[in-house]
Amino acid sequence: MNGAEALVRTLVASGVDVCFTNPGTSEMYFVEALDRVSEMRCVLCLFENVATGAADGYGRMTDRPASTLLHLGPGLANGFSNLHNAARAFSPIVNIVGEHATYHKRFDAPLTSDIEGIASRVSDWVGTSSGPVSIALDAARAVYEASTAPGRIASLVAPADATWLDGAEIAPPMLANQRSQASDEAIEKAAELVASGEPTLLLLTGRALRADALELAGRIARKYGKVQVMAQTSNGRIERGHGRFPVERVPYPVQQALDKLSPFRSVILVGAKEPVAFFAYPGRPSRLLPEGTVVHSMATIAEDCTDALDRLAAKLGAIEPALVETGSPPATGTGPLTAMSLAAALGASLPADAIVVDESVSVGRGFYNAMRASPPHDWLQVTGGSIGDGLPLAVGAAVACPGRRVVCLEGDGSAMYTNQALWTMARENLDVTTVILDNSSYAILHGEFAAITGGKAGARASRMLDLDGPRLDWPSIAAGMGVPCTRVTDVEGFVAAFTRANATPGPHVIDAVISA
Amino acid sequence: MNGAEALVRTLVASGVDVCFTNPGTSEMYFVEALDRVSEMRCVLCLFENVATGAADGYGRMTDRPASTLLHLGPGLANGFSNLHNAARAFSPIVNIVGEHATYHKRFDAPLTSDIEGIASRVSDWVGTSSGPVSIALDAARAVYEASTAPGRIASLVAPADATWLDGAEIAPPMLANQRSQASDEAIEKAAELVASGEPTLLLLTGRALRADALELAGRIARKYGKVQVMAQTSNGRIERGHGRFPVERVPYPVQQALDKLSPFRSVILVGAKEPVAFFAYPGRPSRLLPEGTVVHSMATIAEDCTDALDRLAAKLGAIEPALVETGSPPATGTGPLTAMSLAAALGASLPADAIVVDESVSVGRGFYNAMRASPPHDWLQVTGGSIGDGLPLAVGAAVACPGRRVVCLEGDGSAMYTNQALWTMARENLDVTTVILDNSSYAILHGEFAAITGGKAGARASRMLDLDGPRLDWPSIAAGMGVPCTRVTDVEGFVAAFTRANATPGPHVIDAVISA
Repeated sequence: MNGAEALVRTLVASGVDVCFTNPGTSEMYFVEALDRVSEMRCVLCLFENVATGAADGYGRMTDRPASTLLHLGPGLANGFSNLHNAARAFSPIVNIVGEHATYHKRFDAPLTSDIEGIASRVSDWVGTSSGPVSIALDAARAVYEASTAPGRIASLVAPADATWLDGAEIAPPMLANQRSQASDEAIEKAAELVASGEPTLLLLTGRALRADALELAGRIARKYGKVQVMAQTSNGRIERGHGRFPVERVPYPVQQALDKLSPFRSVILVGAKEPVAFFAYPGRPSRLLPEGTVVHSMATIAEDCTDALDRLAAKLGAIEPALVETGSPPATGTGPLTAMSLAAALGASLPADAIVVDESVSVGRGFYNAMRASPPHDWLQVTGGSIGDGLPLAVGAAVACPGRRVVCLEGDGSAMYTNQALWTMARENLDVTTVILDNSSYAILHGEFAAITGGKAGARASRMLDLDGPRLDWPSIAAGMGVPCTRVTDVEGFVAAFTRANATPGPHVIDAVISA
Repeated sequence: MNGAEALVRTLVASGVDVCFTNPGTSEMYFVEALDRVSEMRCVLCLFENVATGAADGYGRMTDRPASTLLHLGPGLANGFSNLHNAARAFSPIVNIVGEHATYHKRFDAPLTSDIEGIASRVSDWVGTSSGPVSIALDAARAVYEASTAPGRIASLVAPADATWLDGAEIAPPMLANQRSQASDEAIEKAAELVASGEPTLLLLTGRALRADALELAGRIARKYGKVQVMAQTSNGRIERGHGRFPVERVPYPVQQALDKLSPFRSVILVGAKEPVAFFAYPGRPSRLLPEGTVVHSMATIAEDCTDALDRLAAKLGAIEPALVETGSPPATGTGPLTAMSLAAALGASLPADAIVVDESVSVGRGFYNAMRASPPHDWLQVTGGSIGDGLPLAVGAAVACPGRRVVCLEGDGSAMYTNQALWTMARENLDVTTVILDNSSYAILHGEFAAITGGKAGARASRMLDLDGPRLDWPSIAAGMGVPCTRVTDVEGFVAAFTRANATPGPHVIDAVISA
């Protein structure tokens, strides 16, 4: 068996049976093995950042790694920024990065680069296979590393000759370690802070934002009126909606975050980090907590946060069920589409069991709250601040969860970054409804310009912040990649198109033209 | 004056007055300065790999650096692969990479990454400004480093507070060193090899492929019948066409290269490296020269190659003018568009003084030869093997050379990588005619699959190599970004559309549907 076949079969044996790829010459033996290993589902992406972002979405929804297959250093670099986002979401991913044959690298052919050097900037583990005998063992190791808590990026560099030479064998899976538990002292200290009666924040991320963990946090908040539960500003996945314990997020704008956090005397971190400003602004603090706030890390992101909340609730005798969301979704409005009317329309129309991917940036600041009472759904965000993750996340989530509708809320500027994802949605007939928030502008940057400079952009500066001249025509772009698109300008049109799209198998784009 | 304004004014004072960018919050003070520094032309790109590729094209055509402005580590990573291509073309580029404020970085906010670590993998020089007092000096230094022979990538990391704080001053330009000259011994040795009467190859790249240097090489070839002049497989820029000394390139397919190089007993490198295979293939050599060939580097890429050829010609008494291309372009054919008929049509119809950007990959293997007798033109290639450079190169070349028509020959798979460049062509009204070679396939990978595995891709493997299901609709994609597009399927239609596009100001796309 050649190295490539052993590599693919080992990935499958280790539970990695989806691969998002844009391959090249050095990966041809991996591709060739697909004709013999039908258990591996390989999904073609027309740009590598689509492949890595899709692996991120897949990992968030399954808690298992997908693999990517990337073409040498430049292919890895093309997928880097969504790996950055994935690392900040603690998504498990196995990157297979093709490389020149071992004996060829020293000739410095045009595609030669320092793959390990690039990979190490965005990977928790980097390995390079020395030949066909080791490549399957390396693959099993990569899956193990990716599956290690909290979910990690493992990058395996696969020289072409290690894939084409014979003498390889399938390697057995390596079982990932169980998550370790938070210490008794950490639980005890958290219990003391809660019981003190001081205003206390339970700040969550990671697995602590799944419904079971939120229920536990909600029980504590129910028993102790001074305890509030919040999520970080950016989180990989939140299970929420009607019948679940609702959780606010720390606001993105610095002043709002300062105001929101000002009441607290202590903060208990559950997977989370101490909240800091997304960016620095002149004269504004980086740290968002009031001076003197006690910060206690009860459980790290790599520890079992659900178990920690369970033990904390038990110690506090918080056994009454959480006060879950029982409200009604907002009423569908009428009239022109604005950020606010669109938020209500989304909240009113979200289908059951949806996976919402939120790369709505500025227009969508009200979406999260507007959907708090919508049918139960998952909420996926851009975690590393690098735009262009939304459409790829939607691809990965749809591949991970057939039968569920993915609703992708996309700023127009962000959508352009990885518009190639639309083609993969069409090819794989994925159930994704993409809503393009079409305001012909990097609207967030107008806000940031004001926030950071205190002024308003002039004509030449504005040209760097606006997407007009020419205006992007999303129905054309989507149709060009095989995805039907409906342009809407008012709430009635949006709801009709959104409802129809969600009821129709396969992908659809809604070009939601936003009035200022 | 704040740091950002001093930075922008220093770039302008140092001769860098074009900036290709996709900015974010940390770059807002640079953007804000544009309203006061009208000498800086800032060009918005909707993805960073467009910005870096455009800077590459600009550098190749002007021999001066443009700057880029990129948003932290992920923005740099998004532009990495075209910087890789630029480095292999020896293009001068100054990257300005925004970074968190110096005091903010330690909080590890979501966009934090090891910018210097990423930059160092694709830069010849990396610097980080410590504050507003140093940032202008750092900018002048970056321009100096980028301008140092043979043309280099300089990356300056600009923390946000270094741009917004006051107390900065404009820094004076630093004059780049003159290129050093090849040694007399190196010229002498080359002269001996030529005069020996053995079959000798003059292998050129870089500045040695400009018309003046080629004329000198041609004089030597005219006097010494056993001397042949060739260019590397991949080169940043070749000046060629009717009335210029024609130069073949080392073929990409390994067997063709071996055959072509087999006659030579000695090779004189002028800027070039010893030719090696682009990829390794099982059972095939990496080195392309016959065993025992004498390889002599007469001038390195950083040395003055034109001067070296001048001195060699003088020493050899090669004073007769080179035998320049005096043939006629091929006749325009008729009938369906094939790789061959399209090559002839291009050769017959190329406008005068064009800049040809060649990312035609497999379909375009015959284009270079078909255009050898076309009116004088420049020929720009993807130098680092990372696809997605063509459309961005065209943007940069058009910005660099107003009044000249850029003809961009693009494989459909490659065009998808950085399709966002079309929008910038529309916004800047650039005179670019893009010909999409529409075969709905990574055709080169079918060839590589056969070359490397010796077999033919089966159904599952083929799905990774084909772009159908759905077929990309280029007229829609182009129109979506504001560029008109004409679909053609036969030679007559192509020539009519190509001629009309080249005579019409602004960008145009021709969707050339290729028959198998």
